[in-house]
Amino acid sequence: MTLPRTATTFAPPVMEARRWLDGVTFPDDRPLMNVSQAAPVDPPPDALRRVMADVALTRDDAHLYGPVLGLPDLRAALAEQTRTHYNGAVVAGQVAITSGCNQAFAAAIASLCADGDEVILPTPWYFNHKMWLDMSGVTTVPLKTGRDLLPDPDVAEGLITPRTRAIALVTPNNPAGVEYPSGLVRAFFDLARRKGIALIVDETYRDFHSQSGAPHDLFEEAQWDDTLIHLYSFSKAYRLTGHRVGAMVAASARLAEVEKFLDTVAICPGQIGQHAALWGMQNLQQWLAGERAEILARRAAITTGFPELADRGWELLGLGAYFAYMAHPFDISSAELAPKLVRDQGILCLPGTMFCPEDDASGRSQLRIAFANLDARGIAALFERLTGA
Amino acid sequence: MTLPRTATTFAPPVMEARRWLDGVTFPDDRPLMNVSQAAPVDPPPDALRRVMADVALTRDDAHLYGPVLGLPDLRAALAEQTRTHYNGAVVAGQVAITSGCNQAFAAAIASLCADGDEVILPTPWYFNHKMWLDMSGVTTVPLKTGRDLLPDPDVAEGLITPRTRAIALVTPNNPAGVEYPSGLVRAFFDLARRKGIALIVDETYRDFHSQSGAPHDLFEEAQWDDTLIHLYSFSKAYRLTGHRVGAMVAASARLAEVEKFLDTVAICPGQIGQHAALWGMQNLQQWLAGERAEILARRAAITTGFPELADRGWELLGLGAYFAYMAHPFDISSAELAPKLVRDQGILCLPGTMFCPEDDASGRSQLRIAFANLDARGIAALFERLTGA
Repeated sequence: MTLPRTATTFAPPVMEARRWLDGVTFPDDRPLMNVSQAAPVDPPPDALRRVMADVALTRDDAHLYGPVLGLPDLRAALAEQTRTHYNGAVVAGQVAITSGCNQAFAAAIASLCADGDEVILPTPWYFNHKMWLDMSGVTTVPLKTGRDLLPDPDVAEGLITPRTRAIALVTPNNPAGVEYPSGLVRAFFDLARRKGIALIVDETYRDFHSQSGAPHDLFEEAQWDDTLIHLYSFSKAYRLTGHRVGAMVAASARLAEVEKFLDTVAICPGQIGQHAALWGMQNLQQWLAGERAEILARRAAITTGFPELADRGWELLGLGAYFAYMAHPFDISSAELAPKLVRDQGILCLPGTMFCPEDDASGRSQLRIAFANLDARGIAALFERLTGA
Repeated sequence: MTLPRTATTFAPPVMEARRWLDGVTFPDDRPLMNVSQAAPVDPPPDALRRVMADVALTRDDAHLYGPVLGLPDLRAALAEQTRTHYNGAVVAGQVAITSGCNQAFAAAIASLCADGDEVILPTPWYFNHKMWLDMSGVTTVPLKTGRDLLPDPDVAEGLITPRTRAIALVTPNNPAGVEYPSGLVRAFFDLARRKGIALIVDETYRDFHSQSGAPHDLFEEAQWDDTLIHLYSFSKAYRLTGHRVGAMVAASARLAEVEKFLDTVAICPGQIGQHAALWGMQNLQQWLAGERAEILARRAAITTGFPELADRGWELLGLGAYFAYMAHPFDISSAELAPKLVRDQGILCLPGTMFCPEDDASGRSQLRIAFANLDARGIAALFERLTGA
């Protein structure tokens, strides 16, 4: 008997990590420091909360089913923002709103792949991508990155087979934090186009990129949509993780396929979250610029403070967006170290083993620290705890 | 090359039907009568809207990710309601909250099936079930029903093969309206258990069942969860379709599998919708009883008014929950009749062909009328238009 789809993959790592907290008590003078989450921990700004309340009270249609591919105004607004930000040609018919960015990835894969197909993911990878490929009967082909955690298009080319349907990049990267240079993203696009496969670019953390302006030039390409499937999330920028709003920008013909998938797993994205995302795009750009500046300042604090960890044998492998990706100096696997850090230091972070194939030993020396929710004082406290580990 | 998953199924029928409206104008004295939707068209009661606004304004955690399987309080409340309503043993750990009931079905199938497996669906079927099975690589085995639109367990038994993983029932039925008798549901449960397969019972429209109390006794069975997967929706009862809140009640071991699926396609259900569902369960039972009485009165109006249609050769095949399922007297297929009814009579309803296998001719003479959104006057107007068709 063949295994059911869910039995082909592993349990959600974030839920597993939460279970490490069971039975552990944290003293008042050293509370739990949760750097496991790749998400804001503060609620949205008050003005946005009032907008959501107002939508609930006054917009009757916000309580009813909406179009499968999302609110027309939100699709149009994201098309316009994408045109402006990337200096490219994008229309509303090339935008779908999804119930979070994970769902956009799932829908993209459903529109590309059948059982037995292959998708290339640079390692360390985002585990939810791996899980969905497993459950879809798609073979994940790991693309090992070097010390700089950047994937090499020439190495990728050697992995392409007649069953390869896509290469999926995440930039700024989850878990590794690194921002892929524009030229590298372009090289992957050219490779994918030449090979007749799709390039999925997941830019969930785009709004916290250290570089202003477009992080790549793919949307400037005529017929970008014969190759590119672009994924975005409103959750991180406007603190809407509890409302599930993501997006896919792709060929309108692909979105007609994606619509079938979304209709059966979601029917439509939640309406209040969509209205909030729209208002956020229209009214919170200045606020968001401040958020970005703050996260970049925190990132700088990691760089500044790191030498004391380096003195103890730690290494900073990648840094950007929400994440610092580090190599630890201990003789045990990160899979063992991470729960031990909960017990001994009150730090909850995810081990590199959660982001790597089982036969890839590199994750054992790695940890992902989602530093973005710590202020300068919190970062100092984090370093203090880690140096004591 | 094998087709990608989405290419193995058809476009969402509801979206297709919406397109029939394109370019059609409806005179003021005969506005569009939309009986295509299996959903409330009015917003939730004001008190519930105020609760949602209040959650947005005051509950910080409602804006953040929640547990994959849903808010603990909501899981506990649905467990309690299920215990009470069905006189059975159900605990919170056997309840998962999903982003709508379609997603609960998708997750159930992912936990049961691999490519090439089979699931039995009575016909006419709910098209989103068929679409998801197609996209999952699962063969849908149609179980033809008789004139009463009820499936026969003996016929079902003859369809079971070593690849069969489940039988899925919808009661009250979408599209056919019929309420499956308790003994029939029990016979399917016994068959499924004897054969070692799952019985999925989708009770999305349970709150509008004409019979008070439990519509079946499956939850009274010791170890019901070795066979039963129960699906429910908060959307219809509390008018929350725009917020996507459904549920699955099943073995906790199965929910650990379901959690993998939900983590990758949703991460968590929308938080405001979950809080609304919880408040609705706690505070709107009397209001809901009134809603049910009103829908039962409308159902009675269909029965009362039908003879004039019967005189013109129409037949009422099934009636219940939101739906009247009718045979029309015309020489054309319902697939042609339905768009013609939009143009000629200003009625939008779905043709039986959308609910049947392509090689099953019975759908061609059938129409699904979602009457529940029409009051007595609207039902009279509907009959008037249909008699003029």
